[in-house]
Amino acid sequence: MRLSPVAAALAAVLLPATAVADEGMWLPSQLPEIESAMRGSGFQGDPKDLSDLSKPPMSAVVSLGGCTASFVSPQGLVVTNHHCAHGAIQLNSTPENNLIVDGFNAPTMADELSAGPGARVLVTDRFERITDRILADARGKTGRAYHDAVEAASKAAVAECEAEPGYRCSVVDMYYGTDFHLVRQLEIRDVRLAYAPPDAIGSYGDEIDNFMWPRHSGDFTFYRAYVGPDGKPAAHSPDNVPFKPAAWLTVSTESLAEGDFAMLAGYPGRTFRHRTAAEFADQVEWQLPSRVELMTALLGAVERGTAEDADAEVRYAAQVASLKNTLKRAQGELDGLRRSHAVAERRRQEAAMSRWLAGQPDAAATVADIASAAEVIASARATRERDQLFGLMQAQTQLLRSAVQLQRLALERGKPDAGRESGYQLRDEARIEAALRQAQRRYAPAVERALLAELLARHRALPADQQVPEVNAVFGSDAAATEAALQALYADTALASEAERLRLLAADPAEVQASSDPLMRAAAALQQATLRFEAEDKARAGELLRLRPAYMRGMIGHARSEGRAVYPDANSTLRVSHGRIESLQPRDAVSWSPLTTVEGIVEKHTGVAPFDAPDPLLAAIARRDFGATVDPGLGTQTVNFLTNLDTTGGNSGSPVMDARGRLIGLNFDSNWEAVSASWKFDPRYKRAIHVDARYMRWIMARVYPAPQLLAEMGLPLDGADRPAVPAAAAGR
Amino acid sequence: MRLSPVAAALAAVLLPATAVADEGMWLPSQLPEIESAMRGSGFQGDPKDLSDLSKPPMSAVVSLGGCTASFVSPQGLVVTNHHCAHGAIQLNSTPENNLIVDGFNAPTMADELSAGPGARVLVTDRFERITDRILADARGKTGRAYHDAVEAASKAAVAECEAEPGYRCSVVDMYYGTDFHLVRQLEIRDVRLAYAPPDAIGSYGDEIDNFMWPRHSGDFTFYRAYVGPDGKPAAHSPDNVPFKPAAWLTVSTESLAEGDFAMLAGYPGRTFRHRTAAEFADQVEWQLPSRVELMTALLGAVERGTAEDADAEVRYAAQVASLKNTLKRAQGELDGLRRSHAVAERRRQEAAMSRWLAGQPDAAATVADIASAAEVIASARATRERDQLFGLMQAQTQLLRSAVQLQRLALERGKPDAGRESGYQLRDEARIEAALRQAQRRYAPAVERALLAELLARHRALPADQQVPEVNAVFGSDAAATEAALQALYADTALASEAERLRLLAADPAEVQASSDPLMRAAAALQQATLRFEAEDKARAGELLRLRPAYMRGMIGHARSEGRAVYPDANSTLRVSHGRIESLQPRDAVSWSPLTTVEGIVEKHTGVAPFDAPDPLLAAIARRDFGATVDPGLGTQTVNFLTNLDTTGGNSGSPVMDARGRLIGLNFDSNWEAVSASWKFDPRYKRAIHVDARYMRWIMARVYPAPQLLAEMGLPLDGADRPAVPAAAAGR
Repeated sequence: MRLSPVAAALAAVLLPATAVADEGMWLPSQLPEIESAMRGSGFQGDPKDLSDLSKPPMSAVVSLGGCTASFVSPQGLVVTNHHCAHGAIQLNSTPENNLIVDGFNAPTMADELSAGPGARVLVTDRFERITDRILADARGKTGRAYHDAVEAASKAAVAECEAEPGYRCSVVDMYYGTDFHLVRQLEIRDVRLAYAPPDAIGSYGDEIDNFMWPRHSGDFTFYRAYVGPDGKPAAHSPDNVPFKPAAWLTVSTESLAEGDFAMLAGYPGRTFRHRTAAEFADQVEWQLPSRVELMTALLGAVERGTAEDADAEVRYAAQVASLKNTLKRAQGELDGLRRSHAVAERRRQEAAMSRWLAGQPDAAATVADIASAAEVIASARATRERDQLFGLMQAQTQLLRSAVQLQRLALERGKPDAGRESGYQLRDEARIEAALRQAQRRYAPAVERALLAELLARHRALPADQQVPEVNAVFGSDAAATEAALQALYADTALASEAERLRLLAADPAEVQASSDPLMRAAAALQQATLRFEAEDKARAGELLRLRPAYMRGMIGHARSEGRAVYPDANSTLRVSHGRIESLQPRDAVSWSPLTTVEGIVEKHTGVAPFDAPDPLLAAIARRDFGATVDPGLGTQTVNFLTNLDTTGGNSGSPVMDARGRLIGLNFDSNWEAVSASWKFDPRYKRAIHVDARYMRWIMARVYPAPQLLAEMGLPLDGADRPAVPAAAAGR
Repeated sequence: MRLSPVAAALAAVLLPATAVADEGMWLPSQLPEIESAMRGSGFQGDPKDLSDLSKPPMSAVVSLGGCTASFVSPQGLVVTNHHCAHGAIQLNSTPENNLIVDGFNAPTMADELSAGPGARVLVTDRFERITDRILADARGKTGRAYHDAVEAASKAAVAECEAEPGYRCSVVDMYYGTDFHLVRQLEIRDVRLAYAPPDAIGSYGDEIDNFMWPRHSGDFTFYRAYVGPDGKPAAHSPDNVPFKPAAWLTVSTESLAEGDFAMLAGYPGRTFRHRTAAEFADQVEWQLPSRVELMTALLGAVERGTAEDADAEVRYAAQVASLKNTLKRAQGELDGLRRSHAVAERRRQEAAMSRWLAGQPDAAATVADIASAAEVIASARATRERDQLFGLMQAQTQLLRSAVQLQRLALERGKPDAGRESGYQLRDEARIEAALRQAQRRYAPAVERALLAELLARHRALPADQQVPEVNAVFGSDAAATEAALQALYADTALASEAERLRLLAADPAEVQASSDPLMRAAAALQQATLRFEAEDKARAGELLRLRPAYMRGMIGHARSEGRAVYPDANSTLRVSHGRIESLQPRDAVSWSPLTTVEGIVEKHTGVAPFDAPDPLLAAIARRDFGATVDPGLGTQTVNFLTNLDTTGGNSGSPVMDARGRLIGLNFDSNWEAVSASWKFDPRYKRAIHVDARYMRWIMARVYPAPQLLAEMGLPLDGADRPAVPAAAAGR
């Protein structure tokens, strides 16, 4: 996008005069601090009741590891997104009994199906600040030593916590090294599938509608958590009994409308909102544009490599899809950050903080640390082109990456498991084997050479001090040498054979390291560079862990001086966001309502996936058989709704609650305009997309009936306005 | 699209309970009949004032032949769409002085540029019912004889009318043969370009935004009509003087808002709304689906033919684009007609008409004629597959079509020009020559063979009585024979040479007909079939011309019995539509405002065409330099607006007027949801897209200033609220 100076000047002019934000992924413990904001949004409870993880409703909110879920009955019934349970549904599907296509409904608990040995329900029961313990040994150290001291203290705290069986523990870092917390989670390992709608409801619209609004997806599924007869976590067993949670959410039976209060709790993965203005600038001015440019170039390379080779085209279809997806995401994030003027605003915030800090007593050390942190960040920028290209040489290849993985595993296998580099521990070996096998189906020599030729040409064009000597040694330092090296490497390697790759995986580390295969030799040479860069990275990471807290203290102190609370960037810990049901004006003259209806399902229906609504659904819509779940204002059945809640990856399945903490929906996606929200929350464009609990109830009452689960949740069985009596009706 | 029975059943359920339509392309003479409806919409004048073509404002509305325009000053200033003037702008552009890129603004009349010898401004001054004269000789005849009698009477009436120089006359058929009118138009032949914005304003968004809303196009341009010093039409000459129209429109200086009355006058080309239910069913159940299927198959054939041949791919790019466009249009029309349940509703209308007719005295003859018309229509259905394939064999090929054209021209050249088949008269020969030359750039033998192979395979699969004997004789009647025939025809023909095609164009007809070139021989054989089909078509057309009036009388009579007036299907005659500025809810949860603003120009701006807003425009937006044209409600400058007016192709450039007949905008497009409106007006989805006269005024006041034209139109020069004094300020 070429922006003329005039268009750039226009930016500021079009900025909205005021933008009231409900921004924030708050730690539950912070909610009393923002009580007035929550009450302003319409919250009717006491924020203190939300701040204790051992009490309802927060103790009802659980992690599935990657997704969020919540208990909705005293019998351990858990609700989450259909897409979060996709693996479990697939695992239990056969060609004859295809739960993906047909959905699943266990008539009784005995009919519930194991979600598989890897499925987890994680109930956070402790969240304890242990900053002093973690930093005790690090204080006074710098760089790598600081990093290692924090790591050692964290590992010790985790080991101590996990000494009690049935728990998974971790140390999490808040505000980039400012605070450390020990998180303890009860690890429930017997998870069973209770109810899932057909895929054509659960992921109606699928990839085509991904990130889109208006949306019409019934993205919900029910699990049940089981524990041993002693009430403690246990592997799947017929003797296990339903887990009795300390709390469960009540499903609302009331209506929703634009402007209503909403809040959401969950485990958002990662955000970057507290990064420095220099990092924002790097992201907007270099990382994202260069990613767009490089992904476009790599797509060109694949195209050249697969021209006139239909077989190679098929082999690289997945990689092309992934490159296109990365390109699209990067472009969307770039457009969003530019539209929100994220860099300019972050600079304004930093300048305001600096001015405030200058007026504080004893601020000299903080100011010095902030300056030092900036230097460390700038030092990483100096090698960003090199790091990007060097990383892609391995990430975008099949055989070279296989060789690199085999060499690294041979190196790491020489250490005790706990000391191995992350990604090369015992538990990672199955994944590595799968990748080594998969390489077979995704490889064509001409394409891999074309991809490397593209990356190597760019590497050769770097300033000499950025070039990696090992890369030049392996691939040559001019175009002719590179061409010859690539021809020779790929002509002579035996790694194109799956058997050979698996033989090396099983071989003695010393034998691997001594391999004379040219690609294995190349990987051994490149590994020297990798190890050197990793050491530099860890030293830098240690320094930033030491220095960033000064920046955060400045930011938090300045905010407090203005009466504003500051939430830490997301880090997969439990967070709460509050706001309201809100429409969106994505573009000039376009307005999106915050509630979609079943009429939209019919409009999108083509009979071809992903728009192949099942006949029972279409028939129920045609009958207008909505009962108590009908929206009184719209006169029809709603499907999804939109809020301004603050979410990111990991919030899938998060319970959306009303002003009194009752479940009104499940979070499952964001809109495309919000793709840049991991860096900047822009209230004009940031929305979250939820499945309406009324649609879930309607599907379970009228379309694919599950009266036993409705009863268990204390919900009306038949669309009557009064809840039916639970328990007995479910026949248990 | 596979619609399950349930989805189909859903149709009726989702029909809106009430749908108030402003539907109608009314003859000006009909407007007094619909006075109460017009007043209901908010019209403030007397419809009688609109019904006289010789009086303002209707006499200000002119045709450009294909587009509509209007006089906006007593000096013959004409405003129309930028896209209607594109040829004239291109004609006057050079690489050094590119009016497409830079726009054009003649400082004085002397600087105005000729729009070219073909440009016309046609001022309708007579519109006279001559049904009795046209049908006098046809009565009592049937079939081909009826057709020929009507044609002869029409030609005689036109010749008589055109005896007075300076006029173009035509006989137009209303309600499919029910009524005939003689239309006389003053034919102004000296048309000059006065003002055009740059293409980046005039067609901002271009093909990408085509049919789309929200829209941000400044699709307007000013012409001036010139006549000889005697006031009569004359070819372009420096001695000519501006034409003094009998009427011109006043440009409104008031604001617009949703719900405001709007009306539009223009020359809509062709609609099919009075076709029979059987024809609606044929369109929805066969024509459009088979077009979609066939276009998809032909795209596949081109793809096969161009695989691994980049040169051929380039040659067929235009044909591929055209096939895709036809496919997209057909799919859009199909989706729209299904969504509007057009067939079911037409069946309901016919059934109601039949019931009414059964109760009328002396209805027997009418009922019998309606039944006969249905039989004639059904007879055409019997050969629809054959006709479609036979037509495409010529339409989708280059060399075969060239051969067919050369043979047909040789045949027609043996007749007096007036007796030649339409498309092969003297005036068509330049076009044929251009096509014969162009064939060169759009031809690759493998692709033409692939296209023919696809069509011929489908032809061979037809029932024996539908197959064309001449096609089988030329191309063989089984796959092997066809393959061999295609190889031989294209290996041995000399028509791939442009010189040879042009030689045959210039050659004596007898020599052409005796040519031994295999493709010329094939074309001679196929021509026998063409002539046979044409004779059948004309006989059928004559019968329908005789019989359809019964159907129309039934429909009109029934409508009158319910107090409803009926407008004739569009036929390029002057029509008026009334309605209001109206938003659109195109899909569940999506709402489009009826006014777009300059903020949308900035949002869409990428710097790359068609979203490359010029810097003067961006700068004026950034300055918020809107003056008197600012929208008081929105606080910004509007660009385009949306009405529910009834339009179709030919309405481009139509003046949109307010309740007092003042110009508030120019029509330039419809929305995609309305692509099926040529068959059925669905008030839920039919909208027309207009450029806001305030945007035109703003561009001419603040962005690319043309004070002389604003003054000539009596408009404020500088954004002041009062009109400045015209005349003198313009320096004339």
